[in-house]
Amino acid sequence: MYSNKSDPIAIVTPSIRASDVQKKYDTRAIQELDAAHYIHSFTDTKALASVGARVIVKGQGIYIWDSEGKRLLDGMSGLWCMNVGYGRKSIADAVYVQMQELPYYNSFFQTTNAPAAQLAAKLVEISPPQFNHVFFTGSGSEGNDTNIRMVRRYWDLLGFKERNVIISRHNAYHGSTIAGASLGGMSGMHDQQIGIAIPNIVHIGQPYYVEGGKGKTPEEFGLEAAGWLEQKILEVGAEKVAAFIGEPVQGAGGVIIPPSTYWPEIQRICDRYGILLIADEVICGFGRLGHWFGSEYFGIKPDLMTFAKGVTSGYIPLGGVMVGDRVADVLIEKGGDFNHGFTYSGHPVACAAALENIRIIQEEQLVEKVRNETGPYLKKKFATLADHPLVSVAETCGFAAGLNLVQKKGATVHDCVPFDSKLEVGMICRGHMFGNGMIMRAVGDRMIIAPPLVTTIAEIDEMIELIRHCLDATLADLKARELM
Amino acid sequence: MYSNKSDPIAIVTPSIRASDVQKKYDTRAIQELDAAHYIHSFTDTKALASVGARVIVKGQGIYIWDSEGKRLLDGMSGLWCMNVGYGRKSIADAVYVQMQELPYYNSFFQTTNAPAAQLAAKLVEISPPQFNHVFFTGSGSEGNDTNIRMVRRYWDLLGFKERNVIISRHNAYHGSTIAGASLGGMSGMHDQQIGIAIPNIVHIGQPYYVEGGKGKTPEEFGLEAAGWLEQKILEVGAEKVAAFIGEPVQGAGGVIIPPSTYWPEIQRICDRYGILLIADEVICGFGRLGHWFGSEYFGIKPDLMTFAKGVTSGYIPLGGVMVGDRVADVLIEKGGDFNHGFTYSGHPVACAAALENIRIIQEEQLVEKVRNETGPYLKKKFATLADHPLVSVAETCGFAAGLNLVQKKGATVHDCVPFDSKLEVGMICRGHMFGNGMIMRAVGDRMIIAPPLVTTIAEIDEMIELIRHCLDATLADLKARELM
Repeated sequence: MYSNKSDPIAIVTPSIRASDVQKKYDTRAIQELDAAHYIHSFTDTKALASVGARVIVKGQGIYIWDSEGKRLLDGMSGLWCMNVGYGRKSIADAVYVQMQELPYYNSFFQTTNAPAAQLAAKLVEISPPQFNHVFFTGSGSEGNDTNIRMVRRYWDLLGFKERNVIISRHNAYHGSTIAGASLGGMSGMHDQQIGIAIPNIVHIGQPYYVEGGKGKTPEEFGLEAAGWLEQKILEVGAEKVAAFIGEPVQGAGGVIIPPSTYWPEIQRICDRYGILLIADEVICGFGRLGHWFGSEYFGIKPDLMTFAKGVTSGYIPLGGVMVGDRVADVLIEKGGDFNHGFTYSGHPVACAAALENIRIIQEEQLVEKVRNETGPYLKKKFATLADHPLVSVAETCGFAAGLNLVQKKGATVHDCVPFDSKLEVGMICRGHMFGNGMIMRAVGDRMIIAPPLVTTIAEIDEMIELIRHCLDATLADLKARELM
Repeated sequence: MYSNKSDPIAIVTPSIRASDVQKKYDTRAIQELDAAHYIHSFTDTKALASVGARVIVKGQGIYIWDSEGKRLLDGMSGLWCMNVGYGRKSIADAVYVQMQELPYYNSFFQTTNAPAAQLAAKLVEISPPQFNHVFFTGSGSEGNDTNIRMVRRYWDLLGFKERNVIISRHNAYHGSTIAGASLGGMSGMHDQQIGIAIPNIVHIGQPYYVEGGKGKTPEEFGLEAAGWLEQKILEVGAEKVAAFIGEPVQGAGGVIIPPSTYWPEIQRICDRYGILLIADEVICGFGRLGHWFGSEYFGIKPDLMTFAKGVTSGYIPLGGVMVGDRVADVLIEKGGDFNHGFTYSGHPVACAAALENIRIIQEEQLVEKVRNETGPYLKKKFATLADHPLVSVAETCGFAAGLNLVQKKGATVHDCVPFDSKLEVGMICRGHMFGNGMIMRAVGDRMIIAPPLVTTIAEIDEMIELIRHCLDATLADLKARELM
């Protein structure tokens, strides 16, 4: 079905031979089941069925293998989640023990379980001081959905029923429930939920310097973009605005790294008008930016933080909301019953996985490593890609990075000539990446990575070399197609 | 903190001694972490913190133990999910193997994994013939949320943009995302999401004979209650109605078992007006009613079915939607990219747990057992509780049952005198149940159970005896308080 392109750099490690993997998995049989029955996320099912899905069968460290034995360097940490890397036996052990002891119990019946209570305490320990309470969900989507309900409840309980508008940003990603997608700013998702989006959510522009910063310094642009929040507050009426939500660094939007002036000004504006600040830390949390939470990197003090992904490194689904004292005090003291929750909230096995995952992050000092050692090294190495003829800018924040593909380079990022978006050059490049054993995601013509936090200096070297090789292959391909 | 009431019937089994459990768990320490940091689902956090949560530490078969070594018979299957019972080592084994092989990968990048593809095929195999496709989510909430989006997309793609209204029922439960709660009919949830509910959802009455059937036979009332759908369709305008959604038996609403005439008439009305029928099978699926899905019990043919809970028996969070051919054909053939999905959709470890869980259900013939053996036995035994002075009616459907507490019995259920709802007699009864080692849930003054499908004849006897004992204790308590 799909074809593996030639692969001059990526190798199959000696420990896992292609023949072993092939013997174990019948690729065609799995692909046929998949094509016949599985509707994938964010996918054209018909188109995928015609070529066949790549079957991922094995993970170890920062590498994954498909059923044909092909190795790929996972530059996306699964889907921004595999912070401690694949193959952690100690997480499997913790899960195995907990599952045999107590595989499930709910938190609805005045009941709790030890891993949930211990994880709540651990999350409070590692998060900024204003956070003393946790609400568990099963995912980041459910976490952001919960935020909306908490914000609404908070203002209701204080008697401000008209404080009902949440301000978000275009190109933000806050999950895929209807409320999450309404909160997010993904036009492709909004287009498919006309008539069902939830009311009272408005959007401002994103702090994307490449897009909007022409003629300004990044610092000037950061202040301008934050100022859009104040404009929107005044337009809506400050007395109607409940909260502002943002990812510290926008992930699915394309690793949009705001200028340094942006978040402090957002904080100032939120404070000035008394509106709640929600940080969606689903991607930035648990070390991605070299701090436990992205909010700490940018020096802001959110009232609510959504988490998921890195909390378990994706080993078991888990998400939730860190509830800051400002909100928790009102909900708990004045709220009585909070009519919200999920069957899997505080799932003992998921919480046990999270506890072991966080223990690993602490023991191996992965947050500090990304902050002081591997993060700065990645930044330096990734920046060298900007000299490639296809690349206008290559920027990094912690262990998240993005580069822009352009048809013609210019003196500044704003003088470059972009490709016609219809050509989908990003997807062409992604094809070369995957074909050559490198998982790098395309968001339009911006190519992004968010590698596992365990990635070593040597692996960063390998990754950058691989990316450069694939950029070369993309360039040759584009020239052959006469697109450059 | 909380007090264990005297316990003359429930015993601590020899295999797990109270002293062992106590040595292992420091109840007070866990309760303190819990009270300080964990905001529970559907709970008054302040009130709970003042008494302390019961710490559940162990499960085996149909029993769970708290950290004080007290055994409880879990009549609620965790939260409607523990279909195969606690302590299944083979599920832990399957999870352990999969987690070490591939703990996570996404389904966004034209990629799949073997357990996800195999589970999709298995779900197709065990579900009614119109289902050939699966969309995975992380929970039933996300599944119902997905339904709304699928229904919307289906009608859009067919050019019926105005078909935008979904009809649901009062007292329905369809999850706790904002869209799920909007779809559901729980007034306590609606009250806390004023101004954020999603538009275009309307509700009709529930088919609850005790509530609405006075002066009619159940069969007459069933037709009348189904007729409310037709009335609503005509009121809204048939050309605007997209879908009707219902749980075959309403679960969280109080195990509301519709009269036999209800669902066939609902099917007829949906067919007549061409509107989609969605069965929320989160509770009824995977054998609860003695069929794989509740829709089969009632002989209806839904276009979409939500599932969760029993699919993994809650061992790992997993949910999704079975997509019938009518919808799948349009989405796949005409839809292109479906801009929806979750990080944990098709999670390999969750899918591996589901595969082993379903294998157990098949191998032990739990569905057939509930249909032919233990279900009929439970029905017979549970019905005997109707002779209790507090009970007006005690009814069962498969392995879900409910009884109503009344102040004074009458010639028919409609002649009984209910308690003043402010007295919260159901909660008083629940206290006696928990205190005496029996987990039975209160929904208002209706007491409900949904035991694990592995419950044996002997365990049913024990359970009914325990319930009767607790009803006696409740009666004595109410008399002592001069409430009867």
